[in-house]
Amino acid sequence: MCELLGMSANVPTDICFSFTGLVKRGGETGPHRDGWGITFYEGKGCRSFKDPRPSCESEIAELVKAYPIKSEAVISHIRQANRGGVSLENTHPFTRELWGRHWTYAHNGQLSDYHDLPTGDLLPIGETDSEKAFCWILAQLKQHFPTKPSDLTPVFEFLAQSGDTLRAKGVFNMLLSDGEYVLAYCSNNLHWLTRRAPFGKARLIDEDMVIDFQQETTPNDIVTVIATRPLTEGEPWVKMATGAFVVFKYGEIVFERVITDDLAKAD
Amino acid sequence: MCELLGMSANVPTDICFSFTGLVKRGGETGPHRDGWGITFYEGKGCRSFKDPRPSCESEIAELVKAYPIKSEAVISHIRQANRGGVSLENTHPFTRELWGRHWTYAHNGQLSDYHDLPTGDLLPIGETDSEKAFCWILAQLKQHFPTKPSDLTPVFEFLAQSGDTLRAKGVFNMLLSDGEYVLAYCSNNLHWLTRRAPFGKARLIDEDMVIDFQQETTPNDIVTVIATRPLTEGEPWVKMATGAFVVFKYGEIVFERVITDDLAKAD
Repeated sequence: MCELLGMSANVPTDICFSFTGLVKRGGETGPHRDGWGITFYEGKGCRSFKDPRPSCESEIAELVKAYPIKSEAVISHIRQANRGGVSLENTHPFTRELWGRHWTYAHNGQLSDYHDLPTGDLLPIGETDSEKAFCWILAQLKQHFPTKPSDLTPVFEFLAQSGDTLRAKGVFNMLLSDGEYVLAYCSNNLHWLTRRAPFGKARLIDEDMVIDFQQETTPNDIVTVIATRPLTEGEPWVKMATGAFVVFKYGEIVFERVITDDLAKAD
Repeated sequence: MCELLGMSANVPTDICFSFTGLVKRGGETGPHRDGWGITFYEGKGCRSFKDPRPSCESEIAELVKAYPIKSEAVISHIRQANRGGVSLENTHPFTRELWGRHWTYAHNGQLSDYHDLPTGDLLPIGETDSEKAFCWILAQLKQHFPTKPSDLTPVFEFLAQSGDTLRAKGVFNMLLSDGEYVLAYCSNNLHWLTRRAPFGKARLIDEDMVIDFQQETTPNDIVTVIATRPLTEGEPWVKMATGAFVVFKYGEIVFERVITDDLAKAD
């Protein structure tokens, strides 16, 4: 299994604090030694840092921890390989273009019977089930929505259903973003937390580090963090239900998939 | 105008020395203050570092200079903006998937009448003539070669012709790579140099720095560097002719486009 970390904020915000907790799990407080990656959006542009080496030993992770890159949307992942060897091409997040935007994706879980998923002319580069599923999602989106609809509600509904299809093949916890929206699909393990005024202090679970958000924020800041497991103590992390799907924009929920009895029973 | 830097090598080689010379031109010994980027391949995977800030002031450029990332194929670019504002999405190199590989591209020059170039379902994300031309090249390739041919000679000939089409629209110096091949098309300003045994010393033009390649290499190493302008003194840089197109693999030329009289007359 792997660990996911995402962020959606209404002001460019650095993710140094949360990322510091995450990288500890990459070989030190957690077993995820098979690489890590992080993608920061700045408007329509994005930049990724990736390393197939453990995050707790990576010079590039040190840079990312120390250098406060401010972003409104972030996707990060640390990997414990199951499908696909330890290599740069198998390291999440994966980014592809759709509708003239970069779409970035990271997956936690493991799929079976995924080889036949049709991906159109989007070919996977590495060997992971995760990248194959990503190509399938984007190919499906492209087929159903050749251009970006002005109302994205049907796109979000479609993505929730795509998540269900993949969850039926194993475990599928996913983060996805186009830089404006940050989308989270939960199979069995995903939590989120929104920080807004009045801000307080938080303590990392994985490292002896406390931050006082009061000192780091303005009263209008809204910052949502999404993670496989809560990264801090003493904050009201929301555990997502199986089949739950939530879309954040500028830190706020803009779409949420209601979990019906039928969906719950399906597990 | 901008400056290009590429490398093709038969062993994973770091580009710290050449990159150190290049970044000086990003606002210090040269006027290219509008961002920089570098993409390193490791097998089928690649990683990019990008910054819309001047390379001579960039913390990320400091990391890339100091941390010897070894690669067999590298594409780098420093930018002096003409078409498109200074932003991350307009920062080269650009990377897209074709035939299950990452293709990475950087352009030096400026094009006119490029808006109508058809790019199929590959949409540009930023506003540059460069990215538009890249999407056009890949869309053309995809249309003419839906799958990767086992003999790439017709692909290289096709790319040389694509370069001619773009050169007719202005200035088009280009570096392109899929991680295995590094391709260079010259409109008016591109040089290359192959280093192999017996290795000697070289001095950077842009910084007071000397390297003794004898100390850094083994006798079998073959490393080709491609740059807009020579980066070192006292080495036999080859100036490419207008319309010249050369493809390197593991540091060696594997395809070269002969410049005919007709092509020369076209300028």
